[in-house]
Amino acid sequence: MVESIGEGEIVVMIDEKYRKYLVNTSWDTRKIRGVGVIDPHILLGINYGSQVTIGNKNFWVFRASLIDKLNALKRKSQIIIPKDIGVIIVNCGIETGRIVLEAGIGSGSLTIALATAVAPTGKVISYDIRADFIEHAMSNIENAGLKEYVTPVLKDVTKGIDEKNLDAIILDIPNPWDAIEHVHNALKPGGYLCSYSPLTSQVEKTVKTLWEYPFIGIKTLETLQREIVVNKMGLRPSFDMLGHTGYITFARKIL
Amino acid sequence: MVESIGEGEIVVMIDEKYRKYLVNTSWDTRKIRGVGVIDPHILLGINYGSQVTIGNKNFWVFRASLIDKLNALKRKSQIIIPKDIGVIIVNCGIETGRIVLEAGIGSGSLTIALATAVAPTGKVISYDIRADFIEHAMSNIENAGLKEYVTPVLKDVTKGIDEKNLDAIILDIPNPWDAIEHVHNALKPGGYLCSYSPLTSQVEKTVKTLWEYPFIGIKTLETLQREIVVNKMGLRPSFDMLGHTGYITFARKIL
Amino acid sequence: MVESIGEGEIVVMIDEKYRKYLVNTSWDTRKIRGVGVIDPHILLGINYGSQVTIGNKNFWVFRASLIDKLNALKRKSQIIIPKDIGVIIVNCGIETGRIVLEAGIGSGSLTIALATAVAPTGKVISYDIRADFIEHAMSNIENAGLKEYVTPVLKDVTKGIDEKNLDAIILDIPNPWDAIEHVHNALKPGGYLCSYSPLTSQVEKTVKTLWEYPFIGIKTLETLQREIVVNKMGLRPSFDMLGHTGYITFARKIL
Amino acid sequence: MVESIGEGEIVVMIDEKYRKYLVNTSWDTRKIRGVGVIDPHILLGINYGSQVTIGNKNFWVFRASLIDKLNALKRKSQIIIPKDIGVIIVNCGIETGRIVLEAGIGSGSLTIALATAVAPTGKVISYDIRADFIEHAMSNIENAGLKEYVTPVLKDVTKGIDEKNLDAIILDIPNPWDAIEHVHNALKPGGYLCSYSPLTSQVEKTVKTLWEYPFIGIKTLETLQREIVVNKMGLRPSFDMLGHTGYITFARKIL
Repeated sequence: MVESIGEGEIVVMIDEKYRKYLVNTSWDTRKIRGVGVIDPHILLGINYGSQVTIGNKNFWVFRASLIDKLNALKRKSQIIIPKDIGVIIVNCGIETGRIVLEAGIGSGSLTIALATAVAPTGKVISYDIRADFIEHAMSNIENAGLKEYVTPVLKDVTKGIDEKNLDAIILDIPNPWDAIEHVHNALKPGGYLCSYSPLTSQVEKTVKTLWEYPFIGIKTLETLQREIVVNKMGLRPSFDMLGHTGYITFARKIL
Repeated sequence: MVESIGEGEIVVMIDEKYRKYLVNTSWDTRKIRGVGVIDPHILLGINYGSQVTIGNKNFWVFRASLIDKLNALKRKSQIIIPKDIGVIIVNCGIETGRIVLEAGIGSGSLTIALATAVAPTGKVISYDIRADFIEHAMSNIENAGLKEYVTPVLKDVTKGIDEKNLDAIILDIPNPWDAIEHVHNALKPGGYLCSYSPLTSQVEKTVKTLWEYPFIGIKTLETLQREIVVNKMGLRPSFDMLGHTGYITFARKIL
Repeated sequence: MVESIGEGEIVVMIDEKYRKYLVNTSWDTRKIRGVGVIDPHILLGINYGSQVTIGNKNFWVFRASLIDKLNALKRKSQIIIPKDIGVIIVNCGIETGRIVLEAGIGSGSLTIALATAVAPTGKVISYDIRADFIEHAMSNIENAGLKEYVTPVLKDVTKGIDEKNLDAIILDIPNPWDAIEHVHNALKPGGYLCSYSPLTSQVEKTVKTLWEYPFIGIKTLETLQREIVVNKMGLRPSFDMLGHTGYITFARKIL
Repeated sequence: MVESIGEGEIVVMIDEKYRKYLVNTSWDTRKIRGVGVIDPHILLGINYGSQVTIGNKNFWVFRASLIDKLNALKRKSQIIIPKDIGVIIVNCGIETGRIVLEAGIGSGSLTIALATAVAPTGKVISYDIRADFIEHAMSNIENAGLKEYVTPVLKDVTKGIDEKNLDAIILDIPNPWDAIEHVHNALKPGGYLCSYSPLTSQVEKTVKTLWEYPFIGIKTLETLQREIVVNKMGLRPSFDMLGHTGYITFARKIL
């Protein structure tokens, strides 16, 4: 059973170097960097899983999945990458129906993953102190077809959180310790705080601040990921490896 | 706003060593190893996020999240652990509504995560060649409140797959290469094959078999995770670390 | 050409679980834990590389190498392990003829490696503030046949260093920053400071103190090592892995 | 006590980006890439540990240590890097007086470390099948002042080893299994075989071949190393990291 591309769908186009481009088939003709000027309607009726030629390049077309959306993201800032997103989703119990707050929104990378996980009945509230970041991220989120699940808020999370009874709050800010009191107030009992920080001094200060509030299960994880390369001769880990992204701290609110 | 425990809910009880036990408040009195004999109805009306004393032990009580369900799992076999589950969920686009097949079911660890991710509209089909594994896993899955999303099938995935048009198929079997032809037939175009193997020779043979079929995006990942310990003196990685679990190979069906 | 065991040699006896025991063939009869009571003279004339039976256990006998001496060490304290010893030797230019100071001596693990590397013309000076540690370490060092290269000193390195013109100084103390001024004075220009610390806060304070003195090439390394297990089925990393030992900081004195 | 540069010494010049250049003060005027044309005699009498200006660049000058020699090496091929050199030196008992064979010589990186470790009374025999590699490596080794300890041999180690009674043999060739019989014959009892391979299939075949000969203590290690970056804000692992170099297998000859 073969399915063809329909109106208003989010398609990922993948070129022969496995670079990915998101296209919404309801868009008007537009220029997409790396693809060129394209009228997305030409994709209508093409079978998912087939290869199309646009200009002088060939592209595989698929219904865009989460990893496609993350890989195709336009970056304006350092993003949280898939390796760490998986750790956050699993350890914070992010699932359908959850109400989750993140601060800041950055380029919307984590937001897209959270929105995917809480859909169709949950909600993501995304604070950021920079309007340009919110605008850029919301553009990425709209391209990913997830706008309806995300509420951006131009607000500094260290100054307070208006929402209550949240299932999880994820901090990706330089000074997470300044938000912990507000986070505790805004979480429901059993809700998860999660904080992503590149520096060990940030982790230390965050954890020591968490000790002063009613949280249990305080835990910090570091995750390393390598690609394994297989060629005709055999198999080895890739020489290229990202040495570090961030430490991820978790805690759970108690009464 | 404080929420109290109601009838038919899946509660996690966490003791002071942070060991976790799942309790369904609709269960009759039963013995739970590590807790003792308990009538779950005594939990009714207690506030989530508070601590209760049962026997001579104290337990925090929370609405069970995915990580609670994974941590509380009763193991009959080697399981896929949270570190790798996050990698699978994110890289295979497992989200609400997806129809996913896994083989084998093992103790149901990955099954619980997949069911959580595809709920409320998706489905997990779980093949295993051992009836005792299916029975044990389904007990874990039922305890996690996810039985309605999982269809167990006593079948060898290397002998064929009846289902068609699947979004993803996850293999955790000793000889994944023997299932690849069936996997290709059963996936929808753009669907993901994922294979989890501890040995490099398994990865090599799997990837070389994948080269013979219409798949793109063949990629293998290894993930290492360390806990970071914070104490009054400062911070360091934990001395305890799991050196290896499995390599995870991904591929995407094309027409 | 086969060589047999002679008088006054340091022999390693290796049992079938690959545990190692050092024996000096000039010792009188003594009890060696794991071997039993043994008169080392029974080893005289036996070929190196053969297996002997003592009591009801079989032992391979070899001329003891550095790694034998490290593996057979009796521990009274946390030791610096071979993985980190190699990093120190190579990055501090420890070679024949060098005059090296370490503080503290601990159980003598690093001392044995340093003495081996500087022999036959160099020297290791080992400070420690605990006489019992010096006594225990010197016993290990004597068993390893390296006593002539090591001068133990009961002294606190943070209170001053009497020696001058040293090639390298290796610190394994809780507060290395308190020794840096003395280290700078005692090193020859181009000499290496090396500091081993488990905590990130120690590294941070050490490096920031180094910035205040004439040092260049300040660099901190973390090393992870896994064993790879091969069996008939194939190959995989070991499940057992040490998640952390210490961070090693290097710096080089300039005028 | 300050020491100044003398005739016939190996000096490392380090520029402000910490790039290193070896200079022998007995050389005639020559061009050194990265430094320019230099008459090394201008360095005579300058204090070690001071900074000199040559052309428009500043250089720190030190008596060259092992790590300087390794860092300054001119590469013609993939080299064994310091992280792995330390592991080899420590695990093979390479120390003063040892007679060690390596195959192949590559660019002479490991050779320089081995020669440093066995000096002043030991010897390194270096096989390679390519005369141009031997020539290039010997140039690096001469620049490092270690020529007297190294005997290059234009020979294929898989075709046989003439030397006998060796303390250690280190293989860095694509097909180490083809040399194992010769290695066993050439080692003294208790001597170490060491094999460095990037691919897991190479490790597997090497270890399985070792099982067929009288070796014990067969062990394979993988080592990962990260730099830790300290700045004013705090500390984190470097984003740059080498994901893989080679697996190192060790074994010890028995009679």
